[in-house]
Amino acid sequence: MQLGIDAGATRVKWSLAHHGNILARGDAPALTGHLFSKTQQGNATERLQHLHASVHQAWPDVNLSSVLAGITGLDAGEPSALTLRTLLSRTFALPEQAVQVHSDLHLTYLAYYEPGAGALLYAGTGSIAYLLDSQGKAHRTGGYGYLLGDEGGAWWLARESLKCLLRIKDDGQPPPPVLTAKLQSSLGPLDWPTLRAFVYGSERSHLASLAPLVTEAAQEGDPVAQAIIANAARELARLLSNLTRLHPAQHDLTACGGALTPFVFTLLRSYLPHHQVTYGQRCVSDANALRLTPASAEGHAEKRVLRPSQ
Amino acid sequence: MQLGIDAGATRVKWSLAHHGNILARGDAPALTGHLFSKTQQGNATERLQHLHASVHQAWPDVNLSSVLAGITGLDAGEPSALTLRTLLSRTFALPEQAVQVHSDLHLTYLAYYEPGAGALLYAGTGSIAYLLDSQGKAHRTGGYGYLLGDEGGAWWLARESLKCLLRIKDDGQPPPPVLTAKLQSSLGPLDWPTLRAFVYGSERSHLASLAPLVTEAAQEGDPVAQAIIANAARELARLLSNLTRLHPAQHDLTACGGALTPFVFTLLRSYLPHHQVTYGQRCVSDANALRLTPASAEGHAEKRVLRPSQ
Repeated sequence: MQLGIDAGATRVKWSLAHHGNILARGDAPALTGHLFSKTQQGNATERLQHLHASVHQAWPDVNLSSVLAGITGLDAGEPSALTLRTLLSRTFALPEQAVQVHSDLHLTYLAYYEPGAGALLYAGTGSIAYLLDSQGKAHRTGGYGYLLGDEGGAWWLARESLKCLLRIKDDGQPPPPVLTAKLQSSLGPLDWPTLRAFVYGSERSHLASLAPLVTEAAQEGDPVAQAIIANAARELARLLSNLTRLHPAQHDLTACGGALTPFVFTLLRSYLPHHQVTYGQRCVSDANALRLTPASAEGHAEKRVLRPSQ
Repeated sequence: MQLGIDAGATRVKWSLAHHGNILARGDAPALTGHLFSKTQQGNATERLQHLHASVHQAWPDVNLSSVLAGITGLDAGEPSALTLRTLLSRTFALPEQAVQVHSDLHLTYLAYYEPGAGALLYAGTGSIAYLLDSQGKAHRTGGYGYLLGDEGGAWWLARESLKCLLRIKDDGQPPPPVLTAKLQSSLGPLDWPTLRAFVYGSERSHLASLAPLVTEAAQEGDPVAQAIIANAARELARLLSNLTRLHPAQHDLTACGGALTPFVFTLLRSYLPHHQVTYGQRCVSDANALRLTPASAEGHAEKRVLRPSQ
């Protein structure tokens, strides 16, 4: 059996495959490649235990031969990727050579395109535009994480909404009614001690989980939420147009990810009138598990995974 | 002896006073009131040990009777303040009632003004405008921390500079020469793995420590650095003008803090043509230590601490 992992800052999605068939799927707590401190490494070890438990609960007789993981916040071969390969091999009792660790974007790209065939705009918890050229070399714009970029991603959408509410209050202006009501229904009173404890005291994924409320408020006509969403779409359009300007050969474009709702996608297209962008919904953890299918079923699995036209 | 502590996100400054005289001063690693997780509480305990060692090294026969601490990121009486009071009382072997913990801004304000006498704009690692009204009630604009605000503070200046470099690169534009050279001299190559490890893998104070380079680059004519500094001054002006609009009785205004360099201050004044703002340089840890001077010397100490005209 093969385990495919798509690890993001909001959650981990996994799929288990055997001979080209998906046997089981599941979720586990978020996992990132930010392993710069002992605390972060300790957290990662704990998260992998959760992932292990989730897989075993869904499929108790699991007998893994390989793992392919796409993990946010790292690139294949760098120290964090090697650390995570070791941790994964220990957690699932596999030899290290049976475990591959890549950036999540690299594997997401391969779920849609062969190298050189297109460019991907991804907005999940964070945001990035990414492509592999025909030589397999990676190129990107954005993807600089929550402190330096990630404009238009879920964490950014949620953070902008709280930031706007605080600025509006400081400016002595009335609060935007719809956005305020939606955030209150999730967080309780929007006073500073509550917001401070929520933003500085909880996981990044908790903040990111407010993003759908911003989209809802915008769809219901809240002007502040609409401005945030418009800004998000403009920033995402900038990522994709910058990348395609630098690599004009790649014409086929896909936009995908949890924060790329149809509402954001419609706006995004209005900011890219000269580009043809497709809306993507592929399950990346499935693609990862199938890519590891043993040789006998490989042709079949490859076809299911790599063709952009599917 | 009395220990006064001014704890910020970049460093802790402390002063030791006895009968109205400052005996010693020193620095210790940063300490904040963000104690939402066990990790954060563990870090705080460790930092207090550093502080303890720093005081004892400077004054080996220290015999403390009281501690007054102003700590960034908390307000007196809230859970984090009570936790820090307990930790301080343990670290310095004092009864809890001999330890007072306030927000850093509260004590900074009292180092300049009596309640109701003025308003303070503070830009250190973060930024805030703050005043106590004549009833002693606190009012503020800004001060929302590095994820939600702190525009014009040192961390924000440094973060903006790295963010701008990454955006300029994504846009395919040439890098700003002076700012780039200054940041390179401190960080080495400005490639993404280096920047990522620096921003996501080290203390916030390390990033904040780049702020003087942004000011230097602006002073030497770098247009990107100048835009960042102008934006900082505009944002700081907004904090102060919003606060004084809501509390017009407080006419006397002071701007202070490590990020409020004379260069930023000059720009700030150009954005506040109708306000008279004084540049403040008082040593807050001294004021805190003196405010705790025993009754016999109190009149003297109070005068040294509270008069805005000093």
